[in-house]
Amino acid sequence: MKEPILIEHKRLHELCLTILKAGGVDDLQATSVADNLVWSELVGRENFGLLRLPIYLERVAQGGLNTPCVPKFKDVSLSAALLDADGGFGQFAAGLAMDRAIEIARINGVGSVGVRNSNFFGTGAFFVNQAAKSEMIGLVMSNSFPKVTAHNGLTPVLGTNPLAFGAPRENGESLLFDMATSALAGSTVREYIASGSSLPEGLAINSDGSAITDPAKVSGGALLPAAGAKGYGLSLLVEILAGVLTGAGVSDDVGSMYQDVTEPGQNGHFMIALDISCFMPLEVFKSRLNHLTALIKASNPQDEVLLPGEIRWRNYNRSMREGVWLSGDTLNAVESVCRKLNVSTPWTVKTAAVGA
Amino acid sequence: MKEPILIEHKRLHELCLTILKAGGVDDLQATSVADNLVWSELVGRENFGLLRLPIYLERVAQGGLNTPCVPKFKDVSLSAALLDADGGFGQFAAGLAMDRAIEIARINGVGSVGVRNSNFFGTGAFFVNQAAKSEMIGLVMSNSFPKVTAHNGLTPVLGTNPLAFGAPRENGESLLFDMATSALAGSTVREYIASGSSLPEGLAINSDGSAITDPAKVSGGALLPAAGAKGYGLSLLVEILAGVLTGAGVSDDVGSMYQDVTEPGQNGHFMIALDISCFMPLEVFKSRLNHLTALIKASNPQDEVLLPGEIRWRNYNRSMREGVWLSGDTLNAVESVCRKLNVSTPWTVKTAAVGA
Repeated sequence: MKEPILIEHKRLHELCLTILKAGGVDDLQATSVADNLVWSELVGRENFGLLRLPIYLERVAQGGLNTPCVPKFKDVSLSAALLDADGGFGQFAAGLAMDRAIEIARINGVGSVGVRNSNFFGTGAFFVNQAAKSEMIGLVMSNSFPKVTAHNGLTPVLGTNPLAFGAPRENGESLLFDMATSALAGSTVREYIASGSSLPEGLAINSDGSAITDPAKVSGGALLPAAGAKGYGLSLLVEILAGVLTGAGVSDDVGSMYQDVTEPGQNGHFMIALDISCFMPLEVFKSRLNHLTALIKASNPQDEVLLPGEIRWRNYNRSMREGVWLSGDTLNAVESVCRKLNVSTPWTVKTAAVGA
Repeated sequence: MKEPILIEHKRLHELCLTILKAGGVDDLQATSVADNLVWSELVGRENFGLLRLPIYLERVAQGGLNTPCVPKFKDVSLSAALLDADGGFGQFAAGLAMDRAIEIARINGVGSVGVRNSNFFGTGAFFVNQAAKSEMIGLVMSNSFPKVTAHNGLTPVLGTNPLAFGAPRENGESLLFDMATSALAGSTVREYIASGSSLPEGLAINSDGSAITDPAKVSGGALLPAAGAKGYGLSLLVEILAGVLTGAGVSDDVGSMYQDVTEPGQNGHFMIALDISCFMPLEVFKSRLNHLTALIKASNPQDEVLLPGEIRWRNYNRSMREGVWLSGDTLNAVESVCRKLNVSTPWTVKTAAVGA
């Protein structure tokens, strides 16, 4: 296993941008995706960071990610818009869509934007943080390739369909909540595979209903929804808003990021921004939220109670101060694309010793 | 145990209305609450039905439910409004709020309405069904008296904070999804108590973190959030939108329906209505949703996969055709208020036999 490396976030951003551009990504998308991936690294969500560069660039090369792309907005009402993402990066499309939802909310109090013809968008936390930075409440969801059963179903019909929520706080460290509606996120399955540990029962099943405990076999079976009927209902909510209502792919019309690399994934996203200042003065909202979070923090005298996003902000602050730690897996991913694209890394790429 | 009785739904509605009016509820609220309680009975959600008449009427008598009340709307932006419910029935206020959200959505595509100074509103499914009947997608949430811990917390800081979602279907039987964000709904705890069975571990804890298995002891401890961090995050989402943002009570400012009967509960609600026809022709949406639900229904060749709300519609259709079954518990509740208010029931009230 490669040792982790510490790198200053601006240099990481430069590297990421260079790689994306060298891989054929247009400037607009490359900047947006680099912002997104580096933020994921800063907050400690490696799985949504540079680790995915190899598959993104493979998709770019094979047609699964359209670049350049020409996203087209259509206002469908005073408070709602639809975005055709033209098969580009989900990170790019979702960022544009949240920007537009915020713009609409500034005028009308509420803005909602649906996105179709998109791809995997990374972590919803990034986009609800966009809303929170604009002093708004954000709700973000995306459908995805079907890997998850309905409650009491046996075969996959729904994606891990993430749902995210963000709200600004007095201290600038927004609440950032981001959940997969499945018992396990796809990225967590990959973590189990990487660590070589087996899955507890109750998370994934074969098509006869028997438990899957080998994480490598999940792709041949299905994940279960989180908390049974609850996760199933939430996943349907996401599939209906992000998929059905936007005109995106629905259920098995959505492609797999890893297997269907020659065509855009047809993922759909849905964003809602609410302008807090319409409802009450912003400082009143923040003070009321502070009251709530203080009660929560005090609700266990023996152990720490965390707010959603709190760990991310700790990682973010430390990474901004000290640099970003890149794991061995991420280093391998970055080095493999750098070699292919003839991009030099800011660290020394070690080649395998002769005879090793 | 009293034997269940079958009653025609119109007679049940008349009875409910008569009882509410005899108990001092003004005509407007009485009609709205009777619609809500009888619908709950029709769909088989006894816990949100006439069973609650005794506590509602006690609250009316003691000042916990304001009647008559004068709800006041304030438009806070083109697409958002706030409703001060003036301490009336939550069922009444939430019904008005969803009507207003639908009105706004018809003009602007999206309508969102926050409610403060309200009370317990029953089941969120009722209000998302209002949206679905208007060919809209509805999202409804309410905060409630704190009974639930934060993830890793020990003492209650959040309500069971329900979250509901509804969408219209081609066959008229809307998707109706309604979940408590806690591991157990308050009404389910009462069902455990009534049935005399013990709680499985992992649902409720004492303030030292030890498991509660006696359902009667839950009120001295706390429920856990559904699926740990996921239910906790969703509960916060609800508390922030329905409580913090509306100006309603937050956390321990919200009263208990059963213990704090002399003052309104200060519950808050939050509604969003989305006009589907802005996004795509309604028939296209319904046909796309049909495609999704057909895939879901076919995802288990051996057993039935239910859609959220499907059991409710079966109950509803049967009850409309054959009448509503009132359980022994509901009969006891109804008869006790009828005796107090001198209202005659459409069935013969049996008095205890001499010497029984």
